Amino acid sequence: MTAGRTEGAGGCRRVDAAGAAALLADARRVLLLCHQKPDADTLGCAFALYEALAARGAQVAVASPDGFPRRYAFLQPAGFSPLPPAGFCPQLVVAVDVGSPTLLGPLEAAWGGRVDLCIDHHLSNPGYARQLFLDPEAASATQLVAQVLDRLGVALTPSLASCLYAGLAADTGAFRYSNTTPEALRLGARLLEAGAQGYQICQRLFAQKSRGRVEMERLVYNSLEFLAGGRLAVLVITQQMMARTGVTEDELDGLAGIPRQVEGVQAALTFQQKGPRLWRLSARTSQALDASAICARLGGGGHIRAAGAVLSGTLEQVRARAEASARQALREWEEATA
Amino acid sequence: MTAGRTEGAGGCRRVDAAGAAALLADARRVLLLCHQKPDADTLGCAFALYEALAARGAQVAVASPDGFPRRYAFLQPAGFSPLPPAGFCPQLVVAVDVGSPTLLGPLEAAWGGRVDLCIDHHLSNPGYARQLFLDPEAASATQLVAQVLDRLGVALTPSLASCLYAGLAADTGAFRYSNTTPEALRLGARLLEAGAQGYQICQRLFAQKSRGRVEMERLVYNSLEFLAGGRLAVLVITQQMMARTGVTEDELDGLAGIPRQVEGVQAALTFQQKGPRLWRLSARTSQALDASAICARLGGGGHIRAAGAVLSGTLEQVRARAEASARQALREWEEATA
Repeated sequence: MTAGRTEGAGGCRRVDAAGAAALLADARRVLLLCHQKPDADTLGCAFALYEALAARGAQVAVASPDGFPRRYAFLQPAGFSPLPPAGFCPQLVVAVDVGSPTLLGPLEAAWGGRVDLCIDHHLSNPGYARQLFLDPEAASATQLVAQVLDRLGVALTPSLASCLYAGLAADTGAFRYSNTTPEALRLGARLLEAGAQGYQICQRLFAQKSRGRVEMERLVYNSLEFLAGGRLAVLVITQQMMARTGVTEDELDGLAGIPRQVEGVQAALTFQQKGPRLWRLSARTSQALDASAICARLGGGGHIRAAGAVLSGTLEQVRARAEASARQALREWEEATA
Repeated sequence: MTAGRTEGAGGCRRVDAAGAAALLADARRVLLLCHQKPDADTLGCAFALYEALAARGAQVAVASPDGFPRRYAFLQPAGFSPLPPAGFCPQLVVAVDVGSPTLLGPLEAAWGGRVDLCIDHHLSNPGYARQLFLDPEAASATQLVAQVLDRLGVALTPSLASCLYAGLAADTGAFRYSNTTPEALRLGARLLEAGAQGYQICQRLFAQKSRGRVEMERLVYNSLEFLAGGRLAVLVITQQMMARTGVTEDELDGLAGIPRQVEGVQAALTFQQKGPRLWRLSARTSQALDASAICARLGGGGHIRAAGAVLSGTLEQVRARAEASARQALREWEEATA
């Protein structure tokens, strides 16, 4: 065992920040891979590493299976090109915030088995890369990239700091979620001092909505129903609503969480239409209710506060089944706490 | 001039954290004053000082001109009583986060001229107290109370830390606003380490909504109109909507900001009905548009991004006047940047 490395299962070596930095320090041609439906964390990692490695003279390319959304274009480093340099042949392939090779989508076939280094904070990471720098306690993957850059001796420029801050803010809901650690806040402080545009980043991540999103929120508020004495909330998103507002799938983020915010609501069921008779159920729960139990009875699964299932039938049919399961969870919880 | 003090105008002495701590250290009976429409910052300061001073053996009372909203009851220290002890006669009167004596409302007559110490972060504080610990750079008044407690040698208990965190999170929008400094984030880190319930606090401050509030948001989304090619948004809140949803005035907080979040919107006008023919206009602007100029033409005023005016007439009449003023601001901005 080398310093900074421990042997893992299936040929995956666990490395720490120093180990990851050592790999990056020597690489002359680096390909950075982002996950599908890219967010501020995977892109923040990629853009920060792009700037830092390019400044050290390396050739760097970023591959994102779903491209580079306009929403995050403000994070792109100066001179960034979405296309690799002509004839680019990577010497080191690095996946950032990619918890599983399937999240590489159409890039999985070409690169899924050829990832040299993965920098990630997902506990579920199966260790698909040759070397893995994983810390599930990290609030964001950019928190880990910050450690790697420190080991590389990279000075934080304002644009680097903004990329790292964006991932940190996005993955902690701007320090509102339970993954907000003292370390996350201290890194935020350091990044602001290095010139990160914290306020502008939060404005772009949290405060701005497209006209379509606002129209969708309007429709969602109008479709919101409260059952079981206000303890159960039901929300329906039809394909017609999607077509009418023109929102994309990623603009629906967070809608399923709206009804759970309402005082007294213990379970929120969101039905999103995927086909004429196909629905995706998202269950969100507060307090002691188990969302995964609600969905398990419907053939799905998930976590205690957020779970899902795919249901076939008319809206009336799938609602009846899902609402019955949620009411059962409510009853069991009441009996257990009576 | 004593150490930790500088002489101010009108008999008000400026003190630093050490000066404020020295005053509090000797006081046996302390009255803490909050501002009207109490928020998590003024209450967080008061409850933190209550716990810390009571633990040192002082008799402490908190007076809040608008009482103690249920929303913030989770911050109340163990054994807190909203009523002063019988025969309580304060030796030291301390106003926390109270930027002006008028904000004491019905308490101003009795205490406005008798404030011994004010701990505040409002630049506009006129210096009405005998001694003033003011730092307009502080993100929250609890940030200043934290400094005072440090000088007093008070160890941060989890409940104390939660009170201070609540003020910090509330006044920075959970570290999203432009007043979020590295110091604010570092204090947040320290408070989490001391046991502050950061996640639960943010849930209570930001994530929970009453049924009435949700119903009001629904009505607001339905009343939202976009004019001038989507650059102007108009929102109407009638007395009928208030009655129908049963929301209180303080539950309307933030509604006027909703339309400004929409991509492309440069000015958002919210008309809140105050009487049959009386309306309160709130103007919110993005980018370079001056909200105070929009409202000045209507007899009101305010800041560059948030201003207001009171208008008489039918909704149609007041809308016509306000929209004309907003369109003029849009035209002038276009001409200036053309």
